[in-house]
Amino acid sequence: MNPETNLAQLKNTLNEYTDLRKAMSLLVWDRETYMPPGGASERGDQLATLTRIAHLKFVSQEVGQLLEDLKPYANELDPDSDDARLIKVTTRLYKKRSMVPANLLADIAKATSDAHLVWEKAREEANFNEFQPHLEKIVALRRQYAQCFKPYNHVYDPLLDDYEPGLKTVDVQKIFAAFKPQQVELVRAISKRPQIDDSFLHQNYNEKDQWDFGVEVITRFGFDWHRGRQDKSTHPFTQSHGVGDVRITTRFLQDFFPSAFFSTSHECGHGLYAQGIDVNLSRTPLDNGASMSIHESQSRLYENIVGRSLQFWTHFYPRLLEYFPSQLGDVPLDTFYKAINKVEPSMVRVEADEATYNLHIMLRLELEIALIEGQLQVKDLPEAWNNAMQDYLGITPANDAQGVLQDIHWSSGLFGYFPTYALGNLVGAQLWEKLITDIPDMLDQIRQGEFESLTAWMKDRIHRHGAKFEPQELVHRITESKIDPDAYMRYLTNKYSDVYEL
Amino acid sequence: MNPETNLAQLKNTLNEYTDLRKAMSLLVWDRETYMPPGGASERGDQLATLTRIAHLKFVSQEVGQLLEDLKPYANELDPDSDDARLIKVTTRLYKKRSMVPANLLADIAKATSDAHLVWEKAREEANFNEFQPHLEKIVALRRQYAQCFKPYNHVYDPLLDDYEPGLKTVDVQKIFAAFKPQQVELVRAISKRPQIDDSFLHQNYNEKDQWDFGVEVITRFGFDWHRGRQDKSTHPFTQSHGVGDVRITTRFLQDFFPSAFFSTSHECGHGLYAQGIDVNLSRTPLDNGASMSIHESQSRLYENIVGRSLQFWTHFYPRLLEYFPSQLGDVPLDTFYKAINKVEPSMVRVEADEATYNLHIMLRLELEIALIEGQLQVKDLPEAWNNAMQDYLGITPANDAQGVLQDIHWSSGLFGYFPTYALGNLVGAQLWEKLITDIPDMLDQIRQGEFESLTAWMKDRIHRHGAKFEPQELVHRITESKIDPDAYMRYLTNKYSDVYEL
Repeated sequence: MNPETNLAQLKNTLNEYTDLRKAMSLLVWDRETYMPPGGASERGDQLATLTRIAHLKFVSQEVGQLLEDLKPYANELDPDSDDARLIKVTTRLYKKRSMVPANLLADIAKATSDAHLVWEKAREEANFNEFQPHLEKIVALRRQYAQCFKPYNHVYDPLLDDYEPGLKTVDVQKIFAAFKPQQVELVRAISKRPQIDDSFLHQNYNEKDQWDFGVEVITRFGFDWHRGRQDKSTHPFTQSHGVGDVRITTRFLQDFFPSAFFSTSHECGHGLYAQGIDVNLSRTPLDNGASMSIHESQSRLYENIVGRSLQFWTHFYPRLLEYFPSQLGDVPLDTFYKAINKVEPSMVRVEADEATYNLHIMLRLELEIALIEGQLQVKDLPEAWNNAMQDYLGITPANDAQGVLQDIHWSSGLFGYFPTYALGNLVGAQLWEKLITDIPDMLDQIRQGEFESLTAWMKDRIHRHGAKFEPQELVHRITESKIDPDAYMRYLTNKYSDVYEL
Repeated sequence: MNPETNLAQLKNTLNEYTDLRKAMSLLVWDRETYMPPGGASERGDQLATLTRIAHLKFVSQEVGQLLEDLKPYANELDPDSDDARLIKVTTRLYKKRSMVPANLLADIAKATSDAHLVWEKAREEANFNEFQPHLEKIVALRRQYAQCFKPYNHVYDPLLDDYEPGLKTVDVQKIFAAFKPQQVELVRAISKRPQIDDSFLHQNYNEKDQWDFGVEVITRFGFDWHRGRQDKSTHPFTQSHGVGDVRITTRFLQDFFPSAFFSTSHECGHGLYAQGIDVNLSRTPLDNGASMSIHESQSRLYENIVGRSLQFWTHFYPRLLEYFPSQLGDVPLDTFYKAINKVEPSMVRVEADEATYNLHIMLRLELEIALIEGQLQVKDLPEAWNNAMQDYLGITPANDAQGVLQDIHWSSGLFGYFPTYALGNLVGAQLWEKLITDIPDMLDQIRQGEFESLTAWMKDRIHRHGAKFEPQELVHRITESKIDPDAYMRYLTNKYSDVYEL
């Protein structure tokens, strides 16, 4: 057959594969939003079956042969073209996934789906024991998964690589080691300054007004409601069922304004990414982010670098006052700005300030590497968690709901995912430095509540490319540097020098 | 291999097949409830792909061989056992489905999914022209589908058989012909009586109170919220994603109380059926109703025979008055009862009274048979519709939204489905006569708002068997008669003699 026919045939299979993945995505979205509790077990079966079928479709001999036959053709294409990249990325995924038995993936899908409601209940009841056997099973399955890829430098490498293609455990450890001292020093310096009063954020904030204000802001960010929606879930997330159907979720604390608002802004960053992918990449494995750190660079940029900036609130604070006059009427902008940037070691990662956030991640990375290595037993995890919290942040959770049970990730089997949050912070700052060089009046635009050129820049540099480039390559194309902590440390130091008058 | 191994292998494939079907079911539920409009095209692709994969899995050579090998084993089993019935039903479906190319099914899935939003828009704008090319494509595909089953007595037979296994076009035409004169005569007799005033039903009824009252009633009917939920959609429907996850939808008219309430009760009948299927039949093709007419017997029994009875409202009317004191405070029970049973030729099937309802169905059956036969062209359909409305009901729709565009079915490719509504009315009355013989104080129980033994009876006789029995067989097992209009005509005559003092 000629290469064009081969390519068409490959695309046809990849279309079907992607359709299955998007259907699975909806099964997950629904499980987290609207599924009645009685549906949990059958949902697990459905996810397991679709996982198995999708996997077998992808790693079929036919796909292997097509990729083999397409090699010389791909070498003649423009290496940055959609087709060349599709063949390259598919070849990488094919090689990796061919090493995993379909049944192992189906077992993981079933085990994590079953674990989900148990985790929710265990968290509600702050009862780790209930969750322990499920987590043990998931850790065992994930170790088994990682071991499919022997030989490796580190057993955690194959897991990390699923979320961060090309990155190794040792790379992440190096990057983290490079800025941990500065980050710890920054928190220490802040702790010596007089503490900020944010009590006015802890009042009754009507849920509907919170919802409406959040929607108003992310509409301005550019979230397209014709091709997306927002719902509520226990743990906020973003799910794409195609470029025309991107969904974010949020959750509300009635007595703390920042929670839902920054969560909505965060997920909007993910949502803009998914909505911005070139429609030509639809129904292929390129209809995806480049990696989770690149995804987090978007979410944390909209949430923090933009959403917690003085420029942003210069525009939106007057509007917020219209929603909450009795709560905020006598609070000046500068006081509000400092309050939403208050630094304080705290139990819960998703509520953490920017200065301590990465410490939460470092702790998780340390623990999950130990679990996957087999150095740490699941039964010892709560104690290890509490000890690490003391080490990193000098505090101890009152119970496991505030501690080891707080995140959804491990119940979903997402080992290898956590470091991408911290990496996302770093990449976000790198992009930001480049962005404000390219668009010198960016801060003025934000002061005006204008985000069109910001989002257009992100779409052009990041979103539209989907998964065409590996994360290090993509960051380098834009910033001429690999992932690096310096920009983020400059950003943090700068910001907190201002907020805490260091 | 021994038969047990063969059976286990067959079940394994049927489990996967059913998982795919349930996933498709969720894709459809979501499309009708929460999907953003931008998702329509990709959703069509997803449904087409899952349709193709599920079909190929079901009609595989492997399944054919297993069924062949299992024949002697099945003959030795108790013919009513789950396993014997599973093999029997699967063999029937296998034979039928093997005759259809997977791509044709995928084309139908894609065409109907694409048509969906167009139909919604066309209906909103009362513009048939917009919808016409889509319907033409769907009719052509459905004709092509029917023609896969040559030879047949009638081209409509294979379509009807999908919803009503074992029933032929000629059977339905005979049944309809047997009671049409009586039904027409009844409507004529009523039209000579003084008309009932139901103006108080056309007032402002707050949506939330409508919702709450409906939920209260169907909770009493036995709808299990742990294993189900209710949402809003343009066209009410019920979708099962497994016995633990059964979802109904409803819609609200702010200015007409009966619409949402009877829709909720109707869908609850379907929902109870799906929730009542024996869990041992889960993840197999038996996790389904026996047929659509059996399904409609349940929905229309809860909606009409129970939900529009004087006994029912003897209990619930005082409660309804608490929700709507200003609207109904001065309306006596008997006046309310007569109003919700008012007979009047009307444009919209789902709002039709029990006396005229079947006429709406006869009209649709006539038209859709003509479409599938090729005797009627899609472009001539609106005129044919309006003429038939004049013939059957003596009225003409003001526009196509009130006429030919009102139902979702044709846009979904559901040719062969409509007659099951009328058949369901008949079966419901047959079951009702048997039920009140078995439980002599049934009416008293309903007067007390007690439905436990009603729903338990239905579960025992109908629900738990899933799709084990064909509809005629099932009705015969319970009532010792096949599907027959006499009970329904007795029911109608009796009821309207009372309401209209005939």
